[in-house]
Amino acid sequence: MQKIKAIQFGVGAMSRMTVPYMIEKGVDVIGAIDPFANVGKDLGEVVGLGRTLGVKISDNPEKTLSELEADIVVITIASFVEQIFDQIRMCVENNKNVVTIAEEALSPWFTSPDLTSKIDKLAKDYGVTVTGSGYQDIFWSNMISLLTGGSHRIDSITGLARYNVDDYGPEVARSHGVNLSKEEFDREEEKQEIPSFMIMCVESICSAIGWTIKELSQKNMPTVSSMDLHVKSTDTKVPAGKATGRKEIVEATTNTGVKIKVELVGKVYEPDETDVNEWHIKGIPDIHVENVNPPTAVSTCASCVNRIPDVINAPPGYVTVENLPPLRYRAYPLHFYVDHHECC
Amino acid sequence: MQKIKAIQFGVGAMSRMTVPYMIEKGVDVIGAIDPFANVGKDLGEVVGLGRTLGVKISDNPEKTLSELEADIVVITIASFVEQIFDQIRMCVENNKNVVTIAEEALSPWFTSPDLTSKIDKLAKDYGVTVTGSGYQDIFWSNMISLLTGGSHRIDSITGLARYNVDDYGPEVARSHGVNLSKEEFDREEEKQEIPSFMIMCVESICSAIGWTIKELSQKNMPTVSSMDLHVKSTDTKVPAGKATGRKEIVEATTNTGVKIKVELVGKVYEPDETDVNEWHIKGIPDIHVENVNPPTAVSTCASCVNRIPDVINAPPGYVTVENLPPLRYRAYPLHFYVDHHECC
Repeated sequence: MQKIKAIQFGVGAMSRMTVPYMIEKGVDVIGAIDPFANVGKDLGEVVGLGRTLGVKISDNPEKTLSELEADIVVITIASFVEQIFDQIRMCVENNKNVVTIAEEALSPWFTSPDLTSKIDKLAKDYGVTVTGSGYQDIFWSNMISLLTGGSHRIDSITGLARYNVDDYGPEVARSHGVNLSKEEFDREEEKQEIPSFMIMCVESICSAIGWTIKELSQKNMPTVSSMDLHVKSTDTKVPAGKATGRKEIVEATTNTGVKIKVELVGKVYEPDETDVNEWHIKGIPDIHVENVNPPTAVSTCASCVNRIPDVINAPPGYVTVENLPPLRYRAYPLHFYVDHHECC
Repeated sequence: MQKIKAIQFGVGAMSRMTVPYMIEKGVDVIGAIDPFANVGKDLGEVVGLGRTLGVKISDNPEKTLSELEADIVVITIASFVEQIFDQIRMCVENNKNVVTIAEEALSPWFTSPDLTSKIDKLAKDYGVTVTGSGYQDIFWSNMISLLTGGSHRIDSITGLARYNVDDYGPEVARSHGVNLSKEEFDREEEKQEIPSFMIMCVESICSAIGWTIKELSQKNMPTVSSMDLHVKSTDTKVPAGKATGRKEIVEATTNTGVKIKVELVGKVYEPDETDVNEWHIKGIPDIHVENVNPPTAVSTCASCVNRIPDVINAPPGYVTVENLPPLRYRAYPLHFYVDHHECC
């Protein structure tokens, strides 16, 4: 059996996990693209392998994608489909399958129907598959869909996910409205209409169950603390009463009348707060699930790499994760899991 | 599309859920068998529907199974394959698919290889499928296998499941050694070599990941309290120091060196104790999952009923749940989920 050949598209923080994970799983990482940083440097050194890989980081996606024969491109650039549409298009037009950790890509049919439809058609024309995976593949989608299998009747599904914006650098703190007053926060929110990642998760769960969504709303509000908090990433103080981050509340009603309400909270933590992932499926019976200290970033990269064989095996088109086999740890080199593997 | 036709085999406590659940999901329950109780009575009244179903409970399995054309038989009789082998055989020889909540049936190739092999061969000969499902399908098997998909490297998997033996009547309290001294408990354990349900769960998880088991051990020990406890089901007292129940520790080592250790505790609870289902997957990263108040009995019956279309759709033979599609809540009548449904 031949090894899987992969190209890393985007050589930022996440590639420091995806590239080593791929190499440890027997994938040949034969190319790397990043137009903005480390161009010309060796991928192995940039991602912290401590050795060279003989792969120079290219700033020319068209050239790299057309010259190299690869089974899959791993895209770790941005969170939204619009931001990576051109990159996906180039991969597909060069006959490459794509897996990305872009959060919207988990289930983008509702939030970006036109772009997703274009990708789907193009992928079918070229006979390749495009899929979004990551932490959300399991913890915000398939784990919940699986637990519904223990339900005879579902009345509602509620979820709460929380992360510390102060773990992700000053830009993330800023984008979450840290240090704004209530009025400033609301003005900012009016300017930008960014869909909550929880919309895609609700979409994915509903698709897995065969529900359609009749109504869907998103409400954003600032989180506020009654104490002053120190922000590591900006080395500043958020005074009590100013925004410490953002809470997004996504509410949906399905065609069967089931209510789904999911909250995503990104904030600067008070001393006793930790990351949260906790869901309740109410009905017959009530089902609860909780992950203490969920490993968001590491599981995002591990899931993305474990998904590679599934994406290669899948039929052409935009294939969302609820239509792939359940994600699994891969005990052997990844090409072991590819059906009839003939590269390129 | 035609409705699914089902026969309930075993009309005890569990059938009071499986039969109403099937009927609410649009299944035609056309027969019922129980040689020991309620023979000749109407199934609807016996299972608490509050109305008759026009289905008399039969004490003659051969007659019922040969006379009625049905897609599936739901067996809720006992926990071990040996105890229900004849019943499964009769179903298969009468061209019926089988789903059972017998705990061993989840993954019986290791604990009952000969019987499972016989069932598998017979089922293939007759073109039907036999599957074990229940609470363990999700909470002790597929939920854990799914979470491993977020792992880059796994060093160990540990699990703890706990239930109150006092919830299941005097016979279960007795079979767990309640009120025995340490010496009496050990003597009882030597006489009966009953495999822990956790062996099948470990088998199922390993099969899902593609691991084989190199070593496997089971150790049983009494649980003991430092206070006197009242046993509701027998209206007796367990003095401090006597057995309040049993702890089963199953340890396995896989072909890849991963250690799996799972504890199953069935005991009379102290005042502050509750049911537990908690697992840790250690490695890169560490993944934790917990279900507070897991709904064991209700999810057992809901899972079994939700599995019916999967079992009907599956290829012939003994098919374990890690080889079926991930379990899902069924939003519509169950025949909606059957591929090319043509009954009988």
